Amino acid sequence: MEGPGNLEQETKTCKADATSRSRYRETLPQIIDSIVDSCQKETRLSHISPERIPSRQAVKEILSRTHQLLFPGYFSRENIDPVNLNYEIGSMVTVLFELLARQITHSFRHQCFRYSLPCVGCEEKGYQEAVTLLLSIPGLQKILSTDVMAAYEGDPAAGSSDEIIFSYPGILAISIYRIAHQLYKQEIPLLPRMMTEYAHSITGIDIHPGATSGESFFIDHGTGVVIGETTEIGKGVRIYQGVTLGALSLPKDAGEQWRGKKRHPTIEDDVILYSGATILGGDTTIGARSTIGGNVWITESVPPDTRVIMEEPRLHFK
Amino acid sequence: MEGPGNLEQETKTCKADATSRSRYRETLPQIIDSIVDSCQKETRLSHISPERIPSRQAVKEILSRTHQLLFPGYFSRENIDPVNLNYEIGSMVTVLFELLARQITHSFRHQCFRYSLPCVGCEEKGYQEAVTLLLSIPGLQKILSTDVMAAYEGDPAAGSSDEIIFSYPGILAISIYRIAHQLYKQEIPLLPRMMTEYAHSITGIDIHPGATSGESFFIDHGTGVVIGETTEIGKGVRIYQGVTLGALSLPKDAGEQWRGKKRHPTIEDDVILYSGATILGGDTTIGARSTIGGNVWITESVPPDTRVIMEEPRLHFK
Amino acid sequence: MEGPGNLEQETKTCKADATSRSRYRETLPQIIDSIVDSCQKETRLSHISPERIPSRQAVKEILSRTHQLLFPGYFSRENIDPVNLNYEIGSMVTVLFELLARQITHSFRHQCFRYSLPCVGCEEKGYQEAVTLLLSIPGLQKILSTDVMAAYEGDPAAGSSDEIIFSYPGILAISIYRIAHQLYKQEIPLLPRMMTEYAHSITGIDIHPGATSGESFFIDHGTGVVIGETTEIGKGVRIYQGVTLGALSLPKDAGEQWRGKKRHPTIEDDVILYSGATILGGDTTIGARSTIGGNVWITESVPPDTRVIMEEPRLHFK
Amino acid sequence: MEGPGNLEQETKTCKADATSRSRYRETLPQIIDSIVDSCQKETRLSHISPERIPSRQAVKEILSRTHQLLFPGYFSRENIDPVNLNYEIGSMVTVLFELLARQITHSFRHQCFRYSLPCVGCEEKGYQEAVTLLLSIPGLQKILSTDVMAAYEGDPAAGSSDEIIFSYPGILAISIYRIAHQLYKQEIPLLPRMMTEYAHSITGIDIHPGATSGESFFIDHGTGVVIGETTEIGKGVRIYQGVTLGALSLPKDAGEQWRGKKRHPTIEDDVILYSGATILGGDTTIGARSTIGGNVWITESVPPDTRVIMEEPRLHFK
Amino acid sequence: MEGPGNLEQETKTCKADATSRSRYRETLPQIIDSIVDSCQKETRLSHISPERIPSRQAVKEILSRTHQLLFPGYFSRENIDPVNLNYEIGSMVTVLFELLARQITHSFRHQCFRYSLPCVGCEEKGYQEAVTLLLSIPGLQKILSTDVMAAYEGDPAAGSSDEIIFSYPGILAISIYRIAHQLYKQEIPLLPRMMTEYAHSITGIDIHPGATSGESFFIDHGTGVVIGETTEIGKGVRIYQGVTLGALSLPKDAGEQWRGKKRHPTIEDDVILYSGATILGGDTTIGARSTIGGNVWITESVPPDTRVIMEEPRLHFK
Amino acid sequence: MEGPGNLEQETKTCKADATSRSRYRETLPQIIDSIVDSCQKETRLSHISPERIPSRQAVKEILSRTHQLLFPGYFSRENIDPVNLNYEIGSMVTVLFELLARQITHSFRHQCFRYSLPCVGCEEKGYQEAVTLLLSIPGLQKILSTDVMAAYEGDPAAGSSDEIIFSYPGILAISIYRIAHQLYKQEIPLLPRMMTEYAHSITGIDIHPGATSGESFFIDHGTGVVIGETTEIGKGVRIYQGVTLGALSLPKDAGEQWRGKKRHPTIEDDVILYSGATILGGDTTIGARSTIGGNVWITESVPPDTRVIMEEPRLHFK
Repeated sequence: MEGPGNLEQETKTCKADATSRSRYRETLPQIIDSIVDSCQKETRLSHISPERIPSRQAVKEILSRTHQLLFPGYFSRENIDPVNLNYEIGSMVTVLFELLARQITHSFRHQCFRYSLPCVGCEEKGYQEAVTLLLSIPGLQKILSTDVMAAYEGDPAAGSSDEIIFSYPGILAISIYRIAHQLYKQEIPLLPRMMTEYAHSITGIDIHPGATSGESFFIDHGTGVVIGETTEIGKGVRIYQGVTLGALSLPKDAGEQWRGKKRHPTIEDDVILYSGATILGGDTTIGARSTIGGNVWITESVPPDTRVIMEEPRLHFK
Repeated sequence: MEGPGNLEQETKTCKADATSRSRYRETLPQIIDSIVDSCQKETRLSHISPERIPSRQAVKEILSRTHQLLFPGYFSRENIDPVNLNYEIGSMVTVLFELLARQITHSFRHQCFRYSLPCVGCEEKGYQEAVTLLLSIPGLQKILSTDVMAAYEGDPAAGSSDEIIFSYPGILAISIYRIAHQLYKQEIPLLPRMMTEYAHSITGIDIHPGATSGESFFIDHGTGVVIGETTEIGKGVRIYQGVTLGALSLPKDAGEQWRGKKRHPTIEDDVILYSGATILGGDTTIGARSTIGGNVWITESVPPDTRVIMEEPRLHFK
Repeated sequence: MEGPGNLEQETKTCKADATSRSRYRETLPQIIDSIVDSCQKETRLSHISPERIPSRQAVKEILSRTHQLLFPGYFSRENIDPVNLNYEIGSMVTVLFELLARQITHSFRHQCFRYSLPCVGCEEKGYQEAVTLLLSIPGLQKILSTDVMAAYEGDPAAGSSDEIIFSYPGILAISIYRIAHQLYKQEIPLLPRMMTEYAHSITGIDIHPGATSGESFFIDHGTGVVIGETTEIGKGVRIYQGVTLGALSLPKDAGEQWRGKKRHPTIEDDVILYSGATILGGDTTIGARSTIGGNVWITESVPPDTRVIMEEPRLHFK
Repeated sequence: MEGPGNLEQETKTCKADATSRSRYRETLPQIIDSIVDSCQKETRLSHISPERIPSRQAVKEILSRTHQLLFPGYFSRENIDPVNLNYEIGSMVTVLFELLARQITHSFRHQCFRYSLPCVGCEEKGYQEAVTLLLSIPGLQKILSTDVMAAYEGDPAAGSSDEIIFSYPGILAISIYRIAHQLYKQEIPLLPRMMTEYAHSITGIDIHPGATSGESFFIDHGTGVVIGETTEIGKGVRIYQGVTLGALSLPKDAGEQWRGKKRHPTIEDDVILYSGATILGGDTTIGARSTIGGNVWITESVPPDTRVIMEEPRLHFK
Repeated sequence: MEGPGNLEQETKTCKADATSRSRYRETLPQIIDSIVDSCQKETRLSHISPERIPSRQAVKEILSRTHQLLFPGYFSRENIDPVNLNYEIGSMVTVLFELLARQITHSFRHQCFRYSLPCVGCEEKGYQEAVTLLLSIPGLQKILSTDVMAAYEGDPAAGSSDEIIFSYPGILAISIYRIAHQLYKQEIPLLPRMMTEYAHSITGIDIHPGATSGESFFIDHGTGVVIGETTEIGKGVRIYQGVTLGALSLPKDAGEQWRGKKRHPTIEDDVILYSGATILGGDTTIGARSTIGGNVWITESVPPDTRVIMEEPRLHFK
Repeated sequence: MEGPGNLEQETKTCKADATSRSRYRETLPQIIDSIVDSCQKETRLSHISPERIPSRQAVKEILSRTHQLLFPGYFSRENIDPVNLNYEIGSMVTVLFELLARQITHSFRHQCFRYSLPCVGCEEKGYQEAVTLLLSIPGLQKILSTDVMAAYEGDPAAGSSDEIIFSYPGILAISIYRIAHQLYKQEIPLLPRMMTEYAHSITGIDIHPGATSGESFFIDHGTGVVIGETTEIGKGVRIYQGVTLGALSLPKDAGEQWRGKKRHPTIEDDVILYSGATILGGDTTIGARSTIGGNVWITESVPPDTRVIMEEPRLHFK
């Protein structure tokens, strides 16, 4: 490989001239001035304001605590048993309330500053929307329970619900998506997207918080899955790695023209989408109980109970 | 973009009414009760038991320490040199023994509780299986050394073995897989899968701990690679990003029917699988020294020394 | 699912025999000896040297601080406002200078040891190259500002530049790539690749630091994107998830033969590459303003202003 | 002072010869062997045993949490209000139970090993005695409330009970002493003394856990206060800095002869002991409502309602 | 000592009955209820309120940062040199401003709640008083510089000003006292006393923040020094360990009667007080340039230029 | 006390005017400039230099690790047993070597800068003196073993050597003093004093590192003990709280005149010094086997085998 590689030999380590560090260090103030200038000029990259902005670290902490609430006993440092269940849940919820209220307030207030709106009721809304999210926890648990069951039923490799909760990226991504979607419905700015992007970064599954999904949703392996903002997904849908539920090709200035329109497909109940399938377009609907084979590329609707597979491309054997 | 965006302007920050926080806070006890109720009802999501369950955090720590053992000097906080090699290895191993024994015991014991089995010998097995894993370290190093060499030989962009160990996700995923596979062979519940899912989350490479693989295994880039539970991989195999070694399409209730059966392909020695190739099915064998081209979709066996490429689909140029 | 699962029942927890732990512990010294032996033998996996090697943790810290510099106010613990902008930037830069200088020195010095070169001027170069990187920050901010604007213009789901900076993996991967590329141009060993692999691990986007890219570069979703070492990308290019800009198939011993040659394609200005497109080969050029459709596989050049889509493979509807 | 002290001048920093560090480092293994030998020989300083011993860190954590329980809302990270009082107390108590049980078990078990006793019921006793301590918390709060009131009444500088709880070392030392005394009564080895020594280290007040004290106990300033093992203190006693309640002079081998005997004085109700007063001997009793002046040295009993001051030593004025 | 102490012998470690822990754990809810009851009853010990109270941890952090400001380069994690001096000071001050403002606000607001006062302007005062403290920093540095010089001149064991700043408890206690005294003059509740008590806990020197002291103040060793609230100390005073500047003996209900009156002595310029000297009473003045010998007890004034020593008590030589 | 104190009432919390914070914040740059000016002027308080100075935090870490070495098994996070003894000691020593070498180098180099000396061999001396300290560890353990035994024999309250090691401040102070004294003998600047002052801050026992002491040294309780730089202490000496071994009264400019002279007493073998005893002067010798009673003040020598007690001052009983 890279030769003898005798790392213990007696190569003498060089040492810089004694004043070398100082010489370079002394150039720093000038560099700093140029960076400060640049920060003031590149206003698109800078958030220079006395007002706090939501924090990615805080969002991560909120998700970690909500995750502990949704799956009590799996991810907390302390054991949860019938003796301390009530206390631990109570303690988690009251702490979560404060964290949520603060970040939601920052999100609303940031918007007021960004768009020069009068800032009214942001802090009040922070408390109110935090409560609304907490109220939705039992409902989230109910639907997540169907998602876990769907994983167990759908994957022969799943040994138990413990294994699914501990180690299925699909369940992790779906549970974060469901929290983020709740906040999206409450019209909280910034936070929902920060949440799903956090899920994306650790699972490779990118679900826009605006998408909707019914119960018993299962994503297996999941790396590369992309589910766009206006996607609608029914009950009992099963999705494999690399599936895209996306928009049709967009012109260069797509941002402005298409903002807010339905651009992503509709997937009806009990559909299975195999790995690498691509379904595009706001008018495309995959009918209930259909199966879309691996790598299939679809831009038009498919009726219910259909099985779509690619005609196998001819292979060359050489 | 979003208008003048003058973040320093004099927008007055709103403040909530002084009693607002208290008003919302006072609704929390009722919310907490409903969450506690929900936790008790949704038994599939809750692990409410005085008995400890394995911890994802502990698994991460075990992997980090084992990684330091397998690649001494690359990932430890202290320099490793001939002077302290023996002490640092000794200290790492004795600490790792305790960590492993505890998590293995939790895994076995959890199973006893989950399935109402008599709990016998779990702690004993914890110690025993920890020792067995530690005994396998030199063997793991031997095979990992062939994997590093394979990466060096296979990738023109690789500058040195240092670069490979520091920054190749394939090596990271393969080394965690090899540890997890060892535990899988020891029939430890839960832990192996938690380990490979950790690797999946940071590399995008999802190798089931049940898969087998020979020496000189190289995965390049790797994002989106999926290797199923019953896959068999020979020596000198090279895999690129997005390759799936999976099961044929599974019906809705696949979980129960297919659990434990051979569902994934066999890849013989010195095969190369280019990016996006999909090989499916338990009876599918890719013969030795064959090359499977990018995006090729294969559900039947390929004889040795074959080169399979897709007939290029006709492209439209508009 | 897994039966009654009554976790609160009275299963008695087993306890190991009191001397059991000691018995297993006493086997550890022998295991340790065998691991120490193995570490000394497997020189490819071991970095046993009194000389420090770059640290993955330090690289992560450097990136985190540079990120705070490039996007002031978004990722720092303290608010940045006009009052403290100068101080915070100044403090960050002087700290970063030391961190960078140390890691760069370790990188150069490691190379001297690895290849038995005389070690001259490594520490001096550490300071010098750290300054060079810091000098490039305003330039990096200028080009990153065009990248953020490109994201806003290209994605209808983007609500504001805040959302893009906070939650677009493409922007994260591109900003780390641009830092790494700068160090690559300065011919710093090891660090550039460690940086882009860090970006890869959290975004699924794998850009080799050797690739070049013009302004207004946008990658959407991004999971599975691979951009090879000798790729050249023009201005205003837009790339979706799963795109590969790679080398043509390589023989087994590709490493030695192809090291340093142009192996990856050239993408001219304003090209759009849809999800899953694969462009291979050093002689392949995608002409300006062309659009390559999803999943298209290209190994030859495409003239400017061309739209290439796959002839839709026939689908079977059953 | 130390001359011109021009720290910015151009003194050149020396650098060691490149192999110097290695040369010294290579002597370490021999040094290590001699230290290992010494550790095995100096059995009085070494606790080389597979069995865990109580941990000073854990004792500190137990005290910190108990302190939060005794003074809810003053020292916890989260606000305590009527909404979360129940949850926070519940969570603290269940965590404290586990911490206490473990350390108490270690203490008992260590004793078994130390004295070669059969080890029976240590873990059981750990749980049992932890519960006993927790049961005593309301009683401790009741008596501490009288101590806080005594401080308020006794010190003109005390602004409020908040100030006393936040910043009076006497209250801190007394509250830790009262916890330790409770464990002393439960005959837990090692822990009580570790606790009062922790109090000693941060307040300068050294109260042996074996001493007894009635309600409304006030120690002001407190540095240098020493209260011996068999001291008995009534209600409403007030003590200033530097007061010793000690044993009469002890011969060289005092340890063996006097172990377990009453060696320290008795202080009856409502006594005031001014700074530097020294009261010695197991038969010495200071009668109720007496006042002992500063620096007074007493080795015999004083009747009730007596005021004892030193005859002022004649001073020389030069 | 404690016998053979063979810690490695084969004593078998006991194990609790498997259900033992559960049995004890199940008693916890009842204990918790009784503690919650007790917390609600013992209102003197509980701060159960939705409003935040100052935090001991925050006070410690404020002191640590102010200390870094007062002695730049001695206690900061980063080197301070002419290059980064401005940035580091700037960064420290802006952070300190926020920390101070918050704690000062909590202090004022807590007072409003405690005494049922209308809460007006607390947050405003928080900002204002934080600025006032920061404005006083250069003045504090000026006087602390005389204190350091006094230590160097007064102690033959002092090697340099570095040694004094690093390791003289007197300088630490005096610098914290001077900060606290500044806040005391600004009439901030709670914080000043929390600060000096922190100094007391780590130095054994207890200076009430209300005391006044001129420049060139030196305290050597210092353990047990107590300086009361209304003490006045001139310039160039030198104090040794165990010196008390206190109030005359106080009756049981001293708190109410004496609150706010001058109760402690006046020490004029250049006085030396040797170890253990006790000076009591609000009318007692030690005249300029006087020396008070060790252990001397004084309750009346001493004219200037006097040397007071105890007539040596006769010693018994046996 | 402070009235009804109903903390839950409906007092409305004030809120500052929205722009208030900004207004105050804007005054900070001017304050910062004045502090920067002041830092540059008050050179006695500032260490503004690119050269690193020893760090109090590092000294604390060195002491913590050395403490773990001296008393293996008592203070380490991991259990020490015969299996890992060698590895843990080895690992601790190699880490300690680096820490020590760095701080010793900083100490020497700082001196070069402070006194404008040519800086030669500081780094070399750092390694060399670190090795010398490590070589002294077995000797330190041998003498500390006699100190522990002396505590056991001298204190009836001592239950076991475990209790002494865990909770006797005297043993803690003596062990730190013995380490510091070793470095003092090696003529390392700054560090020895920083070490004993750390001991002082947590035990109230202030032993100058220059003092010498024989084996079997016991200090009980210890708060307020002061032992000066040129004190000589024989074997088997026992000292109680508040004892001063100091210099005779010193004139105002004592620093310069007395630096380096013998100023503190000599205590011969087996002397006992009871609480509050004060022995002053470089010519004062307490002869072997003598006992000095509590509060006795001695400035002249005492022959061997003498018992010195204060003639009890007459007490007034009122």
